[in-house]
Amino acid sequence: MAHIDLGVDETEFPGVRGLMKYRPVTGKPMMELAETLLRGPLSLPTADRELIAAYVSGRNECTYCCSAHSAFAAALLDEGMTVVDQVRADVDTAQVGAKLRALLHIAGAVQRSGREVTSELVEAARTEGATDEEIHDTVLIAAAFCMVNRYVDGLGTFAPSDPKFYDEAAQRITSVGYRNMA
Amino acid sequence: MAHIDLGVDETEFPGVRGLMKYRPVTGKPMMELAETLLRGPLSLPTADRELIAAYVSGRNECTYCCSAHSAFAAALLDEGMTVVDQVRADVDTAQVGAKLRALLHIAGAVQRSGREVTSELVEAARTEGATDEEIHDTVLIAAAFCMVNRYVDGLGTFAPSDPKFYDEAAQRITSVGYRNMA
Repeated sequence: MAHIDLGVDETEFPGVRGLMKYRPVTGKPMMELAETLLRGPLSLPTADRELIAAYVSGRNECTYCCSAHSAFAAALLDEGMTVVDQVRADVDTAQVGAKLRALLHIAGAVQRSGREVTSELVEAARTEGATDEEIHDTVLIAAAFCMVNRYVDGLGTFAPSDPKFYDEAAQRITSVGYRNMA
Repeated sequence: MAHIDLGVDETEFPGVRGLMKYRPVTGKPMMELAETLLRGPLSLPTADRELIAAYVSGRNECTYCCSAHSAFAAALLDEGMTVVDQVRADVDTAQVGAKLRALLHIAGAVQRSGREVTSELVEAARTEGATDEEIHDTVLIAAAFCMVNRYVDGLGTFAPSDPKFYDEAAQRITSVGYRNMA
């Protein structure tokens, strides 16, 4: 259970959901940012953005976020969880397009440090057709999950082990979004 | 200069400021979050929050953010840059109160990984008088700078070397805040 008393049943409101309920003053701008980055009017498909979120969260070993965003990506991708698992195992051999692969390499660099993003990684994405906006958005989404993962795990929140929880969350998120998710 | 064309003079709008101008759709929720975390109605003094931001940014080797938030903290602290430099050099011997020192230890753990925040670190902060809200806010501020640092460096933005730039920015931020900072 969490390091602090969140005042909620954590099995009902696990991970970031309990934190949103606990501290609405910070929860509101956090959810606005999540909604913008994952479902707002950016050119990358939401499925690809959720895949970036799942990939970075896996690299940060954040069980709650990785399980949640893997389920959200799988709900939006034709290939479902198969491709999510492939990306998490090895970006180089996963069945994704060349542009998304190049963007995932940038996201992986951001997960380690902003300073790991090289001109070569950016140029490789551009060669595969990524626009400057898409490169920007990939960096920011990856960076944002380095925040959310640390927030969720830094406060020691509960992560359900039953995949059904995340599948139900996926249905809710893909229909109504991140605002008022708590 | 930045990995992508930000469409601004980066010497005038360096670091995160150029990114805010480049992409207002993401800039708006980012600035709302910064304003809430650093100047919003939380119980930790803004000076302490800026010190946490400077400390984490230094650990992430983000020159722009560390220079900026060091200047912002110094502008608000009686001891000015002396205590900022002490904290950045060694939290254990810095001339700060016991509660802030314990919170900085939590922030340092968050910088490495959310999973590094232990019950012992949280209990130590509580023993020194930190409330659950203050522990929460410290984790989130530290986590947020793990995002901003990666955003600023991941896109290769320019960081001025002249301290005068950051001192002028400090005057602006401490008077008008983060909204519309770009």
